[in-house]
Amino acid sequence: MSNGTTTLAVAFEKAAYPLGGHGKRNADVLKEAFREIEGSLVSDMYGKGSVIEDFQQQMAEQLGMESAVFFPSGTMAQQIALRIWSDEAGIRRVAYHPLCHLEIHEEDGLKELHHIECVLLADANRLITLADIKDMQDEISCLLLELPQREIGGELPSFDELAAISAYCRSNQIKLHLDGARLFEITPYYQKSASEICALFDSVYVSFYKGIGGIAGAILAGSSSFTEKSKVWKRRHGGDLISLYPYIVSSNYYFQKRIRKMTQYYDGAKELAMLFNQCTKAVTKPGMPQSNMFHVHFGVSKAVLEPILIGIYEATGVGLIHALRELGEKSCYCEISIGDRYAEAPLAQVKAAMQMLDQQLSNVDNVE
Amino acid sequence: MSNGTTTLAVAFEKAAYPLGGHGKRNADVLKEAFREIEGSLVSDMYGKGSVIEDFQQQMAEQLGMESAVFFPSGTMAQQIALRIWSDEAGIRRVAYHPLCHLEIHEEDGLKELHHIECVLLADANRLITLADIKDMQDEISCLLLELPQREIGGELPSFDELAAISAYCRSNQIKLHLDGARLFEITPYYQKSASEICALFDSVYVSFYKGIGGIAGAILAGSSSFTEKSKVWKRRHGGDLISLYPYIVSSNYYFQKRIRKMTQYYDGAKELAMLFNQCTKAVTKPGMPQSNMFHVHFGVSKAVLEPILIGIYEATGVGLIHALRELGEKSCYCEISIGDRYAEAPLAQVKAAMQMLDQQLSNVDNVE
Repeated sequence: MSNGTTTLAVAFEKAAYPLGGHGKRNADVLKEAFREIEGSLVSDMYGKGSVIEDFQQQMAEQLGMESAVFFPSGTMAQQIALRIWSDEAGIRRVAYHPLCHLEIHEEDGLKELHHIECVLLADANRLITLADIKDMQDEISCLLLELPQREIGGELPSFDELAAISAYCRSNQIKLHLDGARLFEITPYYQKSASEICALFDSVYVSFYKGIGGIAGAILAGSSSFTEKSKVWKRRHGGDLISLYPYIVSSNYYFQKRIRKMTQYYDGAKELAMLFNQCTKAVTKPGMPQSNMFHVHFGVSKAVLEPILIGIYEATGVGLIHALRELGEKSCYCEISIGDRYAEAPLAQVKAAMQMLDQQLSNVDNVE
Repeated sequence: MSNGTTTLAVAFEKAAYPLGGHGKRNADVLKEAFREIEGSLVSDMYGKGSVIEDFQQQMAEQLGMESAVFFPSGTMAQQIALRIWSDEAGIRRVAYHPLCHLEIHEEDGLKELHHIECVLLADANRLITLADIKDMQDEISCLLLELPQREIGGELPSFDELAAISAYCRSNQIKLHLDGARLFEITPYYQKSASEICALFDSVYVSFYKGIGGIAGAILAGSSSFTEKSKVWKRRHGGDLISLYPYIVSSNYYFQKRIRKMTQYYDGAKELAMLFNQCTKAVTKPGMPQSNMFHVHFGVSKAVLEPILIGIYEATGVGLIHALRELGEKSCYCEISIGDRYAEAPLAQVKAAMQMLDQQLSNVDNVE
């Protein structure tokens, strides 16, 4: 009956209360951001003009970095950061986690376009530690840390570990780059400001369409000499568009709208994870979320779980999960990111949906 | 008195009738494009979804090519086209005009990212001819032709010459790529459809913010196997954004609005060029425009001409020129592209401004 992810995603979006995310990704996201914008607002022109320069300045201050550049994508921004550090050191080798975005989602752009070699640190299922870095045999120009480590559920090192990694890199001429696609989302866990976290890094990328919920776009920040070089590479990549204002205006709008809600999202993630952990055959990773995101692993196959979930969405009006990914024959997992929507769902209804899930998962052996 | 280009540009935009372009590049361009768009229109997602796929299909049909891919920029699209052809041929060398966009406006992205060597054909001040191509000593994978050749005023080869170049390339295993940033703008001169022109090429790039007047964005078209490869490279470049719809919706809107006005723009360019050629010390390149664009060369310095122009804009309300570039000590030039605005200016006022320009240029020797 089920037609895979598509059907589950459709049922999720049709539910009265889909629990993850901020809302539908549609033209209303743009229209809302531009509703109060004067039509006379002058476009940026190839990286110049107040609409881009003011936002860059604001983000540099937010991140506590000297300078910031707006990019159409994190893929572009991060490859460029690693290229600049590699050129400066004269070492075409960097290190990152085996499930780093650059390693698994970018068609090997870093290797194919920049000819930069990558050392994969740590096992795929755990965080990079200071010991991993100390044990590394290869000489590298830059270490990239992703906070939180998305593909293992959004785990974070302790702040002390982070500070020790930063100190080690500084004393060993290794540049430290932050993949901060979800940087704002980790500030409640660390109880640190974005700039306190960024102070440990030489360069930082942040995204505006995860917790911030904009349309697309990224900021790359660092010293002025670093960001000036990044502008040259941005043009080379084809990212120095005549007009980026559709993304900049919406990034700014949703930043203002949501930056103070990161604790709300974090608390929602912890509450929802606890409910999942009370279900038979379900366990969250991490056990307690460290940001607004977490994974849920299920001890049943995707093929079995999907129709169960669709039935629950229809019966309770609560959309629990948007998409499932297979993990071997008898297990699957999902990623959940909490945004504005979670607070709209009545907790009693969420709990009712979870109890139904618990019951049905308990019966799975009889069904299979 | 004059503060260079900025002051002239400001005076131009303040004029009641600025003659070039479609209008101001501001947020109204986006707001107009989205006015009739339903907020429920679903965003594209990393190159998928009807908003991007429908537009790509429509443009493939318009260009008479098998397939088309939307890109955030032409810089990205064209480097990728040349990379694909170079990889296929196993020859990392292409040929283009010395004033090709890739050579002078892209910070050497093609060389720095793709390690592709370039043969510069023809002199900087004239078009590439079939003879240039036949005389070439180097083996190349691809020849890029820009139609019209913007940096020399928008010149075009005859259609017969173009057909002969195409035939020669096909029989010599040289791929022919069209830099068609202004492709739609040349259809009135050739009296050919876009698809009749594209039929001579293996791959084609078109832009949506020149004659079409959108916000940003480009289409790259060719065979399906070519465009599938281009999608992989688009991701590598960081151009496979989660959402490109702000550019796609606006490209589609302004395409529909302006595609039938290319003859109007072309006729306007011819009329205005004729008026410039009646001025002392002014000559257009080409003498008769072959698209909606042309250059005007002046036998006086930029420093002398700018205050004259500003005075004329203030006296007549007609903005003739947006920006001047120096050409040695006693000459300068400008680029003019005709769009919607030209038709709004009463011809009598345009002629009055031109007569004033003629008079003042005649007096320049006394002034200098």
